[in-house]
Amino acid sequence: MTKDVVVEHGESSKAPLVGPVASGVGRAVSVADVFLRFLAIIGTIASAIAMGTTNETLPFFTQFIQFEAKYSDLPSFTFFVAANAVVCTYLVLSIPLSIVHIIRPSARYSRLILVFFDAAMLTLLTAGASAAAAIVYLAHKGNVRANWFAICQQFDSFCERISGSLIGSFAAMVLLIMLIFLSAFALARRH
Amino acid sequence: MTKDVVVEHGESSKAPLVGPVASGVGRAVSVADVFLRFLAIIGTIASAIAMGTTNETLPFFTQFIQFEAKYSDLPSFTFFVAANAVVCTYLVLSIPLSIVHIIRPSARYSRLILVFFDAAMLTLLTAGASAAAAIVYLAHKGNVRANWFAICQQFDSFCERISGSLIGSFAAMVLLIMLIFLSAFALARRH
Repeated sequence: MTKDVVVEHGESSKAPLVGPVASGVGRAVSVADVFLRFLAIIGTIASAIAMGTTNETLPFFTQFIQFEAKYSDLPSFTFFVAANAVVCTYLVLSIPLSIVHIIRPSARYSRLILVFFDAAMLTLLTAGASAAAAIVYLAHKGNVRANWFAICQQFDSFCERISGSLIGSFAAMVLLIMLIFLSAFALARRH
Repeated sequence: MTKDVVVEHGESSKAPLVGPVASGVGRAVSVADVFLRFLAIIGTIASAIAMGTTNETLPFFTQFIQFEAKYSDLPSFTFFVAANAVVCTYLVLSIPLSIVHIIRPSARYSRLILVFFDAAMLTLLTAGASAAAAIVYLAHKGNVRANWFAICQQFDSFCERISGSLIGSFAAMVLLIMLIFLSAFALARRH
């Protein structure tokens, strides 16, 4: 097949040029891969920290009850922090492999491994972000039918903080989809 | 590169055999792709139907309030049904392209398109399933700190049904990760 295409493009006489040009594109893809991974690391770490440090104590309290809201009160938020931490760790560990791809753009099986783990991590991150988003929505709106009240009426800054912390995760989700596509694109190129 | 490896494997004299053997593996991967898509269609459609038809009316009611629980009372469940329906539709539409890959195992750019949309649909499905799971968890356990009560104590069969409907989606998520990996594997093979 490779030979056919080279002939089609009329480049059979320029054969020595094909290698460097192709690896130039592969290198650009690998550089983009490292760059996107860095952005995703920033997104997930920002999300984990923003959520993990959320804590609001209301200025009034009775003798028995102190009104305090922490992220760890809701299991979905704990899962959110854990998912972001795991994905962030994975991304940091994947950077060296990604840098190897800049040096060796034609590597294939290591890219395949990255595609698989990127997809698994995308699923984990989406699960965490989406579960947290469902609870944030409930905290804002409440639910009349289930008799769940909107806690954001009391815990105003708590709610702002947990809503904002979702942004980094959702950005990282988009970046991971792009990373999967980039790896697949690098694999689709003829070597 | 292609030539180097052929020489390394000492198969330069068997060159005519490489084509059919390689396309045999490619064909097997494509058949597995179609099969996994069918399974994922069954999973998503079962989830959407199980959740979409959930409805429980308690046998007692007052003059003013009838105790009824429907999936559409909770926005997360509506999103869950919509996400499953969209992913199911996409999977049905992707089957023809997947069948084309059985006939032409070396197709590359159409596989690339499938990888991208598979990843996007994986994200959508995970978001739906995970948001629904967060609410199902809340319905079972409630949350003392937020004053949200476990509604499953009253709506027993409703809760069983919504819990069960998640299974199909989570199975489809695993299948979609496998589909992305299969496509990447098909792309990683030398053509």
